[in-house]
Amino acid sequence: MKGRYFLEIAYVGSNYHGWQVQQNARGVQTILEDCIEKIVGQKVATAASGRTDTGVHAKQQFVHLDMPVDFNKEDFLYRVNAILPQDIAAKSIIKVKEDAHARYSAKSRSYQYRMHSQKDPFLYGLSYYYPYPLRLNEMNDACVYLIGEKDFKSFSKVKTGVLHFVCHITEAHWSESNGNYLFLICANRFLRGMVRAIVGSLLEVGKGALSVQDFAKILDSKDRQKAGRAVPACGLYLTEVKYPSEIFE
Amino acid sequence: MKGRYFLEIAYVGSNYHGWQVQQNARGVQTILEDCIEKIVGQKVATAASGRTDTGVHAKQQFVHLDMPVDFNKEDFLYRVNAILPQDIAAKSIIKVKEDAHARYSAKSRSYQYRMHSQKDPFLYGLSYYYPYPLRLNEMNDACVYLIGEKDFKSFSKVKTGVLHFVCHITEAHWSESNGNYLFLICANRFLRGMVRAIVGSLLEVGKGALSVQDFAKILDSKDRQKAGRAVPACGLYLTEVKYPSEIFE
Repeated sequence: MKGRYFLEIAYVGSNYHGWQVQQNARGVQTILEDCIEKIVGQKVATAASGRTDTGVHAKQQFVHLDMPVDFNKEDFLYRVNAILPQDIAAKSIIKVKEDAHARYSAKSRSYQYRMHSQKDPFLYGLSYYYPYPLRLNEMNDACVYLIGEKDFKSFSKVKTGVLHFVCHITEAHWSESNGNYLFLICANRFLRGMVRAIVGSLLEVGKGALSVQDFAKILDSKDRQKAGRAVPACGLYLTEVKYPSEIFE
Repeated sequence: MKGRYFLEIAYVGSNYHGWQVQQNARGVQTILEDCIEKIVGQKVATAASGRTDTGVHAKQQFVHLDMPVDFNKEDFLYRVNAILPQDIAAKSIIKVKEDAHARYSAKSRSYQYRMHSQKDPFLYGLSYYYPYPLRLNEMNDACVYLIGEKDFKSFSKVKTGVLHFVCHITEAHWSESNGNYLFLICANRFLRGMVRAIVGSLLEVGKGALSVQDFAKILDSKDRQKAGRAVPACGLYLTEVKYPSEIFE
């Protein structure tokens, strides 16, 4: 059936300049749109729940598109996966209402940031190698200040087109297992570079270079210059995007 | 302290032509020996528990070497890991008796073969994508025939320097979790290409192209022509090598 659909995809970001089509750089969007054009015979525009930066991975990303022709879902997914490279996969395709929007309809996004403290060839490109001791309790104490509806300008890239920097973070905490660190963060929206700047600042707390109170002050300052350096993209995963049930048909 | 050591390493095999030094091809051995030469200032020969073929991974591989100079273990490991590329890691270094041999002293080797049935960007190069139904019970019934001390010529590459094809397999079975298949096999020794030829033949059983009895007959025939096609290297992992406690000092 023709109409608007959400396509659920996943990708390893290492080989791509993020989601969005960019000049002289390969984005996941270009690859996906070229693939769909091959199948349906015409150009179909796509829009994602959000841009991922260069090198960032997606375990779950949603993209909306208006299918101009009738099609069989299973057959379409099979063909998309056969054409897409090995590091991008289509997981499902779901009919949505005509005004559903992958970005504007999303209720929440979840990201994970992964780090490992022992050199591990199998995590290369998939986790940030950080072989230094960390005070996880202090990092989690600092995370408490992130929760709630706040202005996160301190953790946003400066030149972005957003109207305001207020995000509502509902979850933010670290866990550790066998020297592998995992940071989970969930919010209604994220600003550009926000997770990597937050993680970078939390690492300063973990090293003891910043106190938990210093971290709280950085958040209050609304000054990006005060926050820690952004951590590398290879550890960052978009893991879940949630939508209200009303958008599905 | 000078003397013989076992160096425990791990590597993602995708970028290497296996363990051994080959003409015009990069083997893990060359990279490792160049790295050690940089640290100790002279060439040090290494010998591994066994060769891995092109593209095969090692979660645990042991290599012996005679350290010509006194050294600090922790410092040595730190420097080795700093020099080795990201897809090879040194895990530990253990003093062994002067006649201990990484290959000849080994009591057993374990391999895993990994497959996945749903396209997964995060398993690309690390697991064999096999999107077809499999009869796992029949495959495990066939595995029973592998157990014991038997002639495995049917599953060996033909041109090898071995004196005989008898191996003692102590464990061989499949498991499945969420469409990811895992084959475990443990033996005192393995012949060249043996695990991949066994897995290829077991997949024929899983597809229903061969019966369990057919599989038993292939094993008895000692004829490589009768066995199934070798599966790709990307799914194969050397996971464990065991030594008798007497070799350690």
